Amino acid sequence: MKDIQKTPDHREIDIQKVGIKGFHLPLSIVEKKGGEQSVLAEISLSADLTRDFKGSHLSRFVEILTPWSKKKLSSVELKKILEDTRSGLNSKSAYIDVRFRYFVPKLSPVSGMESLLDYNCLFLASLDEKGYEFTLGVEVPVMNLCPCSKEISQFGAHNQRGYIRVKIKYDTDIIWIEDLVGIIEAQGSSPVYPLLKRQDEKFVTEASYENPKFVEDVLRDTILALRNIAGIKWMEVECEDFESIHHHSAFAFQREHL
Amino acid sequence: MKDIQKTPDHREIDIQKVGIKGFHLPLSIVEKKGGEQSVLAEISLSADLTRDFKGSHLSRFVEILTPWSKKKLSSVELKKILEDTRSGLNSKSAYIDVRFRYFVPKLSPVSGMESLLDYNCLFLASLDEKGYEFTLGVEVPVMNLCPCSKEISQFGAHNQRGYIRVKIKYDTDIIWIEDLVGIIEAQGSSPVYPLLKRQDEKFVTEASYENPKFVEDVLRDTILALRNIAGIKWMEVECEDFESIHHHSAFAFQREHL
Amino acid sequence: MKDIQKTPDHREIDIQKVGIKGFHLPLSIVEKKGGEQSVLAEISLSADLTRDFKGSHLSRFVEILTPWSKKKLSSVELKKILEDTRSGLNSKSAYIDVRFRYFVPKLSPVSGMESLLDYNCLFLASLDEKGYEFTLGVEVPVMNLCPCSKEISQFGAHNQRGYIRVKIKYDTDIIWIEDLVGIIEAQGSSPVYPLLKRQDEKFVTEASYENPKFVEDVLRDTILALRNIAGIKWMEVECEDFESIHHHSAFAFQREHL
Amino acid sequence: MKDIQKTPDHREIDIQKVGIKGFHLPLSIVEKKGGEQSVLAEISLSADLTRDFKGSHLSRFVEILTPWSKKKLSSVELKKILEDTRSGLNSKSAYIDVRFRYFVPKLSPVSGMESLLDYNCLFLASLDEKGYEFTLGVEVPVMNLCPCSKEISQFGAHNQRGYIRVKIKYDTDIIWIEDLVGIIEAQGSSPVYPLLKRQDEKFVTEASYENPKFVEDVLRDTILALRNIAGIKWMEVECEDFESIHHHSAFAFQREHL
Repeated sequence: MKDIQKTPDHREIDIQKVGIKGFHLPLSIVEKKGGEQSVLAEISLSADLTRDFKGSHLSRFVEILTPWSKKKLSSVELKKILEDTRSGLNSKSAYIDVRFRYFVPKLSPVSGMESLLDYNCLFLASLDEKGYEFTLGVEVPVMNLCPCSKEISQFGAHNQRGYIRVKIKYDTDIIWIEDLVGIIEAQGSSPVYPLLKRQDEKFVTEASYENPKFVEDVLRDTILALRNIAGIKWMEVECEDFESIHHHSAFAFQREHL
Repeated sequence: MKDIQKTPDHREIDIQKVGIKGFHLPLSIVEKKGGEQSVLAEISLSADLTRDFKGSHLSRFVEILTPWSKKKLSSVELKKILEDTRSGLNSKSAYIDVRFRYFVPKLSPVSGMESLLDYNCLFLASLDEKGYEFTLGVEVPVMNLCPCSKEISQFGAHNQRGYIRVKIKYDTDIIWIEDLVGIIEAQGSSPVYPLLKRQDEKFVTEASYENPKFVEDVLRDTILALRNIAGIKWMEVECEDFESIHHHSAFAFQREHL
Repeated sequence: MKDIQKTPDHREIDIQKVGIKGFHLPLSIVEKKGGEQSVLAEISLSADLTRDFKGSHLSRFVEILTPWSKKKLSSVELKKILEDTRSGLNSKSAYIDVRFRYFVPKLSPVSGMESLLDYNCLFLASLDEKGYEFTLGVEVPVMNLCPCSKEISQFGAHNQRGYIRVKIKYDTDIIWIEDLVGIIEAQGSSPVYPLLKRQDEKFVTEASYENPKFVEDVLRDTILALRNIAGIKWMEVECEDFESIHHHSAFAFQREHL
Repeated sequence: MKDIQKTPDHREIDIQKVGIKGFHLPLSIVEKKGGEQSVLAEISLSADLTRDFKGSHLSRFVEILTPWSKKKLSSVELKKILEDTRSGLNSKSAYIDVRFRYFVPKLSPVSGMESLLDYNCLFLASLDEKGYEFTLGVEVPVMNLCPCSKEISQFGAHNQRGYIRVKIKYDTDIIWIEDLVGIIEAQGSSPVYPLLKRQDEKFVTEASYENPKFVEDVLRDTILALRNIAGIKWMEVECEDFESIHHHSAFAFQREHL
């Protein structure tokens, strides 16, 4: 059977990335406390394609990924996937993008009841002639209360759910999702909780009222907090507030090389 | 050229709906104040298919819809589209679902500045042996402030953006989107506005604090308001609050025949 | 601390559904072969609220759901959740909507290689004075090849990914997702596969070319197949083809009480 | 009334972007043939914020944008919006992201019937100390037919809808959306059409069968076509095929400075 992908190509264009996307797979992510968490991942995996060939063998990407549904995964194993991709596709570079919802137990602030809060997470990694690079991304929901509204009003202050979206690159061994989201969610007016009894709701309401923050404040405080984490060498931070008084969002954005 | 759609079918199944969906078209919606508003519509149009034939001629749906990009549309013209569909497809029934974002000018509550607020709207219509039936749907963003949080806290109260989603059937001539959204957005703790200067923000903050509402309150008040509109004979109401203290929503739902 | 939810209400409206939605939780779904599959669920849980009270205690919904992240779930346990909801909220009725992506191992048709195919699934259940009712929903991707295009063209035929979306109610003990999706995906021109080597791709291409189907055919064949499953008493079927020759979809829809 | 945004800030962080996002507005885009097209835009507008101040005055962004719902817009006017933003916010830089669906009349290839095809478009622009930079983005739906499937199969070949997503920067006066999408949609196996009668469907089926293309081919041909457009100095191209034989996509990506 002819291998038309291997046909020579005459357009003289090295392609930077060819691969699959929108591929779903259950994965096991290593947890900080030991053990693993089953997640539903949406994956994009790709590699470069030299000018010599007409096409990539895309089934190999599926072959490389499928066994990982039965193994545990952290940023270390991600490098192994990229090495397998590079050798399986005879490529110089390989890229992966893994998105999943990750759950962290949360204690309600007064009642101490436990529930599970979900965070959208992202593992991005590349392996090329410059080496291996890993980016960790998290999206952290928080409650933000408007300082202007509080200041100018006789009572009350508008507040809303906001998201702090952080991507970091670092050169230490590992930064745990659990630690990173814990640090970030302290930067809003208040963390959010899946489970709040009345005493908890009173606490969150009062605590956020006493800690008003614009998206600009949340962004700056998040940047300061991230600068304090040893090993972080690059960060991208976006804070978005789903304004309760508008039908649009307020946002602030920053990218920094440390 | 063979017309394979017209081939007889032996499975003896009359199909209720066959058609197109995810079809985009610019449309001109008649405004209350006269004039028209250009909207981007996403349309589904379908008709029944008798057991006698293998398939429908789907290109006819596109032929029927396309000229409407140059004409004005209200619930009256919608009936014309369904009549054309029924005769063009030799069908007993025809259905249409038109979704679009509609803009209504809004004055900021204190400064009186004008801006445009967008509402997701829906025209649903069917034409069959029982006659023509039209359903109007609107999604109205509001600000809702939690009565419990206000009651139990020393100061402040959590609040958030909420959506009141209403579908109605009526037997009066016309109920304008402008009127319907105006009535509905008075049922939250406060309307939302695209443009709020500081004096407006103070007003909205204080007004919502003095008008706390659970989703249950918003639902009940919306039902009462809709029962008061002459001609409404059926309604479906869903209120959803994007809780600022949680990572999930609170909601309430009701369906009523009047 | 005052319980403002328990405050009497004077609007005299019994609310049909009050609850939470957009709540994420990892769940363990019982597999046909024994064992369990960890899934990421998006849940809506609600109950009716009598006219006597101003509001529901929404934290109870979270308290009821959270322990299920550590237990296994099938349609049987779903009833237990609704019973707990009804008693926990002092309600007459309770409703749940659970959506998740479920993976089923699939063998490539010629090479026999194993990979995992994902299906969007839905558990809908209600418990009220009329009893317990469960609805199972699945969305099955298939490949569909157009009979008209094949018939009128000298060579080739346009084909595309389609989705067969089925909801069923049944009065037998259990209908497994694995069995249901297996029956449904035989109704398109060909099943789809995560992993296809060249000999598999040849097989799928030729098999689909010899089995051309309109969405109308897919719908009718799915209806016939479902009518043959003992115990099914209600079905809703939608087939949608993401037409490769258009920028919109073709679809067919049917609802049947058996 | 206190202007808390103007309060000095002591964290010593200049913020790169602060603004609004998810803001909807009807806009009038200048068409190539003269005249204007009403579109529904989703806009993000932002500016930098110096370390001296606690917050931005976000209502100004809405004030700057709102009047544009009544004026016509091209890349030239976009610069005016950014200049107004920079001066209105006392900023050194301003950024805008405008997304809208744009319609172009299309003639069916044999019958010559006219219909409207929709393309997702993007205007991105920035104004800072380095000057004004404009990026035009379009997403073009095409039909792609797999060369491998055709080669190895006795008859037929799988094909599917694909999207060619292009972003370009250029230093000529204007590149029209109409011209750009016309050039791009010639790079797939076939363009797609809203309206195809039988003779058109035969044409598209046969033409695509005689013009098989991998995503890699589509990417390379798009790159070659764009390199031929005078004035383009930067491009980003992504081709994604919604594989009819899989439940995931194939894709190829390239970024080039010319």
